[in-house]
Amino acid sequence: MTKRITISLDAMGGDFGAEVVVPAALNFIKNEPDVDLILVGREEIIKQHLKGAEIGGRLRIQHASEEVAMDDSPSKVLRTKKDSSMRVAINLVKEGSADACVSAGNTGALMATARFVLKMLPHIDRPAIIASVPSIAGHTWMLDLGANVDCNSDHLFQFAVMGSELVSAVENIEAPRVALLNIGHEEIKGNEQVKMAHEKLENSSLNYIGYVEGDSVYKEGADVVVTDGFVGNVSLKSCEGVATMITHYLKRAFNRNFFTKMIGFITLPILKNFRCFIDPRRYNGASLIGLRGIVVKSHGGADQLAFENAIQFAKKEVAGDVSRRIASRVEEQLNMASK
Amino acid sequence: MTKRITISLDAMGGDFGAEVVVPAALNFIKNEPDVDLILVGREEIIKQHLKGAEIGGRLRIQHASEEVAMDDSPSKVLRTKKDSSMRVAINLVKEGSADACVSAGNTGALMATARFVLKMLPHIDRPAIIASVPSIAGHTWMLDLGANVDCNSDHLFQFAVMGSELVSAVENIEAPRVALLNIGHEEIKGNEQVKMAHEKLENSSLNYIGYVEGDSVYKEGADVVVTDGFVGNVSLKSCEGVATMITHYLKRAFNRNFFTKMIGFITLPILKNFRCFIDPRRYNGASLIGLRGIVVKSHGGADQLAFENAIQFAKKEVAGDVSRRIASRVEEQLNMASK
Repeated sequence: MTKRITISLDAMGGDFGAEVVVPAALNFIKNEPDVDLILVGREEIIKQHLKGAEIGGRLRIQHASEEVAMDDSPSKVLRTKKDSSMRVAINLVKEGSADACVSAGNTGALMATARFVLKMLPHIDRPAIIASVPSIAGHTWMLDLGANVDCNSDHLFQFAVMGSELVSAVENIEAPRVALLNIGHEEIKGNEQVKMAHEKLENSSLNYIGYVEGDSVYKEGADVVVTDGFVGNVSLKSCEGVATMITHYLKRAFNRNFFTKMIGFITLPILKNFRCFIDPRRYNGASLIGLRGIVVKSHGGADQLAFENAIQFAKKEVAGDVSRRIASRVEEQLNMASK
Repeated sequence: MTKRITISLDAMGGDFGAEVVVPAALNFIKNEPDVDLILVGREEIIKQHLKGAEIGGRLRIQHASEEVAMDDSPSKVLRTKKDSSMRVAINLVKEGSADACVSAGNTGALMATARFVLKMLPHIDRPAIIASVPSIAGHTWMLDLGANVDCNSDHLFQFAVMGSELVSAVENIEAPRVALLNIGHEEIKGNEQVKMAHEKLENSSLNYIGYVEGDSVYKEGADVVVTDGFVGNVSLKSCEGVATMITHYLKRAFNRNFFTKMIGFITLPILKNFRCFIDPRRYNGASLIGLRGIVVKSHGGADQLAFENAIQFAKKEVAGDVSRRIASRVEEQLNMASK
């Protein structure tokens, strides 16, 4: 059956991202016959970027008169921007006209709007942000990446269940290996929340493999790494920072003199091949999970390819019926615990 | 005046690290006329690695009959290993026979022993671990790196004062830029501890520049980044993991076929130049601060060059009189706060 994804046009530079989002959408529907798209935003702007593509059928436009700015506070957005592209796109998911929503806008506002409109799944206290990061083994999924700064062991446990189900669905792995992020010194291993979550996970039906340290996320071992939003965000941002730094020093080494520049030139295809493994565009698309509906957040600085990957991620979540799977797995865990 | 540093021989592979530590010590005293060294460990083993170097004068041996194993619990070490190389080396600092101690041993045991023997500085609740990491701007100092998993705002504030004084002393910067590690979303920016520490730092005499995110640590901006031990440890380990991953993919790209291998060969000097900027050996040596004495922890996997850098770091701390400076700056902050 054909699925439908809404794309919210949000502030991503000029024209509310239309120059990135519209070509990505056009290319996506060309390659994906089973998914229709609804572009949500100012109709006149979207039309300017269609370049003759036909509207109606598999690509529709839903007009929305407002946009959420990157610096709008979530509470203000909820109160005053009821016809924003973000709100309208999520409303379409709520009322069943679409199966998922993709947005590159203000994360806080997107999360608040999604939570307000879609509501949480039963027994889930908070939404979490999950995304994959590159690793030697391919990639690793990590959550939470910044939605929740203070988490108790129940929250960490819920993250583990949600992460496991999402990864199982989108990666087609029967029982993803789930790990808790921790630090190394034996005598002070972990804070109380982490230790308690560890006990709960050991008694769960998840494929829990125990603690991993920060370096393991980028090496191998676990499919899903669970941590609170503060630590997850710092790890993710540290990864970005280190990659930027290494690229900086690599460029500098090749730019030292005429000779190194010449070598740099013939090395280009190799470095290109290397970069494709850690290309952040491949890893674009973070999911807000724990909601009664699928919402994918694209990086605000995404280009066309990266944005297409975010839509692709939404498509996989829809195909895997992620929200429903999470709900039933959480129910199962609760039944286990009460026995 | 000549300074004296004790070197504890600890488990670092075979022979309690003698094959790494002794050559590092010999090379260090050759290049540093103002510092004498005391090697602490089993005399017979140390002597086997001296290769004819003269004992007495600038290089002395202090026999210790026991070693701390990497998996010994700190409490067990305190109770039962009173003649360990670590304990004897720190005792020499306590009794004034040496100005600092360097060890590559068990971090937890080293911290517990240092705290037990040397005691904390007045008004400092907990020791912290500080080290520098590479960044685009050169390097950034970060603390705490794993000594304290749960920190309140007072602890974070103390870390900031200690970090600022240490960096001022060893880098010769009048007023190092101090930042608090935080995450990006405006609406949930930081947990309570971080927000409260932020207020305290804004009212302090430190050169406090506000919040930075995880990527900034490896880019530029701050001289000292303050965070709790859990987050700091994860950021540091994430950095190691990402560097390992990038090196892996770089090697793989150059090893694809005969042609890429040939290019890899002529690229070697460039990659070598590049690597020297992010060489972990350059950044070896973490200081345990907040104690009435100087204790430097070398990485357990250090080679000779890396271990020499750890001794070098201890020398700089001694020259900068770091413990005394921290004590007087903390006193000053308390006086400011009580006014």
